[in-house]
Amino acid sequence: MKKSLIALAVLAASGAAMAQSSVTMFGIVDVGVGHVSATNSVSGVTQSGNSSSRLGFRGVEDLGGGLKAGFWLEGAISPDTGTGAGANNAGPGFAFSRRSTVSLAGNFGEVRLGRELAAGYDKPAISYDPFGQVGLAALQGWTTVRVSNGVSYRTPANLGGFFATAHYGFGEQAGNNTAGRYFGLAGGYENGPLSVTLAADQVKAGVVNNGYSSVTLANDLKTWSLGASYDLGVVKPAFVYHSEKTGSVKNNIYMLALTAPVGPGNLIGSYARYDLKDSNNDSNALAIGYVYNLSKRTAVYGTYAHMNNKNAAARNLNGVSGSFNSNVTVGAGENVDGYQVGIRHAF
Amino acid sequence: MKKSLIALAVLAASGAAMAQSSVTMFGIVDVGVGHVSATNSVSGVTQSGNSSSRLGFRGVEDLGGGLKAGFWLEGAISPDTGTGAGANNAGPGFAFSRRSTVSLAGNFGEVRLGRELAAGYDKPAISYDPFGQVGLAALQGWTTVRVSNGVSYRTPANLGGFFATAHYGFGEQAGNNTAGRYFGLAGGYENGPLSVTLAADQVKAGVVNNGYSSVTLANDLKTWSLGASYDLGVVKPAFVYHSEKTGSVKNNIYMLALTAPVGPGNLIGSYARYDLKDSNNDSNALAIGYVYNLSKRTAVYGTYAHMNNKNAAARNLNGVSGSFNSNVTVGAGENVDGYQVGIRHAF
Amino acid sequence: MKKSLIALAVLAASGAAMAQSSVTMFGIVDVGVGHVSATNSVSGVTQSGNSSSRLGFRGVEDLGGGLKAGFWLEGAISPDTGTGAGANNAGPGFAFSRRSTVSLAGNFGEVRLGRELAAGYDKPAISYDPFGQVGLAALQGWTTVRVSNGVSYRTPANLGGFFATAHYGFGEQAGNNTAGRYFGLAGGYENGPLSVTLAADQVKAGVVNNGYSSVTLANDLKTWSLGASYDLGVVKPAFVYHSEKTGSVKNNIYMLALTAPVGPGNLIGSYARYDLKDSNNDSNALAIGYVYNLSKRTAVYGTYAHMNNKNAAARNLNGVSGSFNSNVTVGAGENVDGYQVGIRHAF
Repeated sequence: MKKSLIALAVLAASGAAMAQSSVTMFGIVDVGVGHVSATNSVSGVTQSGNSSSRLGFRGVEDLGGGLKAGFWLEGAISPDTGTGAGANNAGPGFAFSRRSTVSLAGNFGEVRLGRELAAGYDKPAISYDPFGQVGLAALQGWTTVRVSNGVSYRTPANLGGFFATAHYGFGEQAGNNTAGRYFGLAGGYENGPLSVTLAADQVKAGVVNNGYSSVTLANDLKTWSLGASYDLGVVKPAFVYHSEKTGSVKNNIYMLALTAPVGPGNLIGSYARYDLKDSNNDSNALAIGYVYNLSKRTAVYGTYAHMNNKNAAARNLNGVSGSFNSNVTVGAGENVDGYQVGIRHAF
Repeated sequence: MKKSLIALAVLAASGAAMAQSSVTMFGIVDVGVGHVSATNSVSGVTQSGNSSSRLGFRGVEDLGGGLKAGFWLEGAISPDTGTGAGANNAGPGFAFSRRSTVSLAGNFGEVRLGRELAAGYDKPAISYDPFGQVGLAALQGWTTVRVSNGVSYRTPANLGGFFATAHYGFGEQAGNNTAGRYFGLAGGYENGPLSVTLAADQVKAGVVNNGYSSVTLANDLKTWSLGASYDLGVVKPAFVYHSEKTGSVKNNIYMLALTAPVGPGNLIGSYARYDLKDSNNDSNALAIGYVYNLSKRTAVYGTYAHMNNKNAAARNLNGVSGSFNSNVTVGAGENVDGYQVGIRHAF
Repeated sequence: MKKSLIALAVLAASGAAMAQSSVTMFGIVDVGVGHVSATNSVSGVTQSGNSSSRLGFRGVEDLGGGLKAGFWLEGAISPDTGTGAGANNAGPGFAFSRRSTVSLAGNFGEVRLGRELAAGYDKPAISYDPFGQVGLAALQGWTTVRVSNGVSYRTPANLGGFFATAHYGFGEQAGNNTAGRYFGLAGGYENGPLSVTLAADQVKAGVVNNGYSSVTLANDLKTWSLGASYDLGVVKPAFVYHSEKTGSVKNNIYMLALTAPVGPGNLIGSYARYDLKDSNNDSNALAIGYVYNLSKRTAVYGTYAHMNNKNAAARNLNGVSGSFNSNVTVGAGENVDGYQVGIRHAF
């Protein structure tokens, strides 16, 4: 049984059919070791320091006439413990919590049904944060990451660099109860060295259940995001602004980042500011990292991050629930330092 | 969609070995939008409106001498939220809750060990309900859908159209405790245009745990099912009768259905009657649907269903636990209307 | 990482490309029926009587210069019910609880990060127990089977038969709290007919959480293991010694076993002694089994096991939590008898 097998897409042994209807299994396993210190310190095995660990299955079918049907099933894995748990998955079981959609695409663009990244998060957060929204140095601040029970529309690729996404998530409550209803819009321009995205989204107040967990939003949650980058070749500067407003509470988040190809990898640096409106309890973060590519699929990486908390602020470095650094105690106004080194392998 | 896509076992690029030991990865992602109204109404993203969303792995090995070994692992997915939850799965994690068996097959027929559809449900319910036991319009009424800890036997295919299944499920209780013990028999004839199946099964009273959840049966649960269809070419009429008896409570369920190829798809209509014995709290359902095939693997579909409840009856349209229409309130004697449109993609 | 790859998908049917970056899907489905009797008796469907049922994905990438990157994701399945539950998985969902690692291997050996079998369990327990640590007749007594949040090192294969493993598991507690910290060492010699392994490991006292469940260790847990076998051709004798000490409690476990090729399969016999120090509450077990190979991948097997409990000892035959024989009541000093027959199919 150790010999076993390679799974391969074949339809009745017809090579032609093969190309037409491919099913792709894909994934990433990213594990490392890290250390974080504040009031006390903790060392541990970290996961997803460079890319989110995952396992997925996806495919596209050409229906003719320019029309394509597709599916995408992608789940989070935590290879440090083998559980399926991630930020959006309460239990230890594997589930397609990252994305589960069916789609139709054509000249008109693409329509997706199911669960996927929120329009207000996907492009503005992931494209411009050089740490890719993972690991100790990731830019924090997005409450709405994924949307269940959603319908989204994306413009086609041939608009001269312009793109837009509209995203609606049903709250699925009876009658006039709007709890959990999501609406997001994102649009931008990406051509040559320049990329810029503007996005806004909103979740209606009430008890919101996304299939994994429930949260109660006392007020509507409204966000704005702006991301931009310009690739100069020797270095790519990027900027992110994100604001979240719920009731009278408002957070503004700013990031300035640089990515530079150095040797066989990339050197990354970022400065982030977490500004809680009408308060002095702000935080500032500095981070530097290097990703050394052993191949297109495999890299080793190292990250150092520092969080400077002011007054009553007690922000930790980024970490999903259950990650090793959630065991660190961060006191009011206390600084946090952390580093991690790891291996990321994609398949 | 049963033909699906095929992940194939390959050993060191040997074409011969490929044919001998195939492993198939297969699945369905079916998502849509729907609306249901009774006392109040709800709109939402629906899943599995035309076929149950799933992901599975199966394979057959030719052992020589007409003997074959096989395995089948198939789990439910809820692509509206990405969870693995289905009717038989309490938590959000993916599991092989739909079927997990190892089997030996030969001239004698097939023996399976593990978890699979109950003999009293599989053929009589799924083959003759033109809505395939899924979506708002599915015929309701089967309590026992799947059996864990089971051993089943199926007759071989070469009996001139006659077939039979015997199915035993261990209760796995110590001593003389028979709680949860299952026994089912199904048999019929399927040849040319005619298909008919008669089935009976029984679950012994007590605390029944199938590995996902526990229910307490105060009395033995005994069922009878009869299904029949005759394909006239322009239209295929079908009939289903199902009765469930536990203690003094008895339910009779009747369905008359028509399937007709119209254009590139099928038009489906059904009338169902839910008759609670010694009571006037009965329900009648009418449904109509159209399935438009974009390819062998992909279809778009629309379904309209109406439930007429009499007196104290308050039967909702069909929906798995957690589905959007479970949020609708259905009062005594109140009618329910619903529709859904969706995309089903098989791989 | 968006590029990612392709398990199936024979692109351009290039055998060479296939060899370079292979992803392997593999698994075992092992189901049978069994009966166990003590104070009372129970019959049921058993799973993993010959090999642990599982589903996994693994791959190796050649990075050049003798360096290889690899990943391994392997989860437990319980095909009797279709759940993912196993000894280390509390819920019904499938998860990569058996192994989830990323690794780098080269002339220096292999380094793995993630969750895997404990160094003190892997080789000494599985290699020398002829029942492979599964089924009613498995040798019992290892508390630490797998380690989460681990880093391990293995020597390369070219040391003339000598091998060693070092394994460290982070407790991931803040400050000086060592709870759950694991350290294991194993080493041995395997060449020609002779195989011998010596191992020791330790888990630090405290609340230990491995991502699936929590246990509280009042004291450090320290073990020693010694395994040896010598293949004489007509018969392979094996010996296992294992001791566990926590606080003042010490268990010694001994096994003598014989494996002999008989006909197309293997005849297996074992005698085990469970010796609780400073107590007369010991147990002795006898087992015999036959594994008949229908092919390289498929076997049918039968096992008979007898447990003789002395004085207050009440040891059951081996069974994972939730397995059918956990429903048997075993009184003090009572004997237990059990048998199982099943099918094991690997893919």
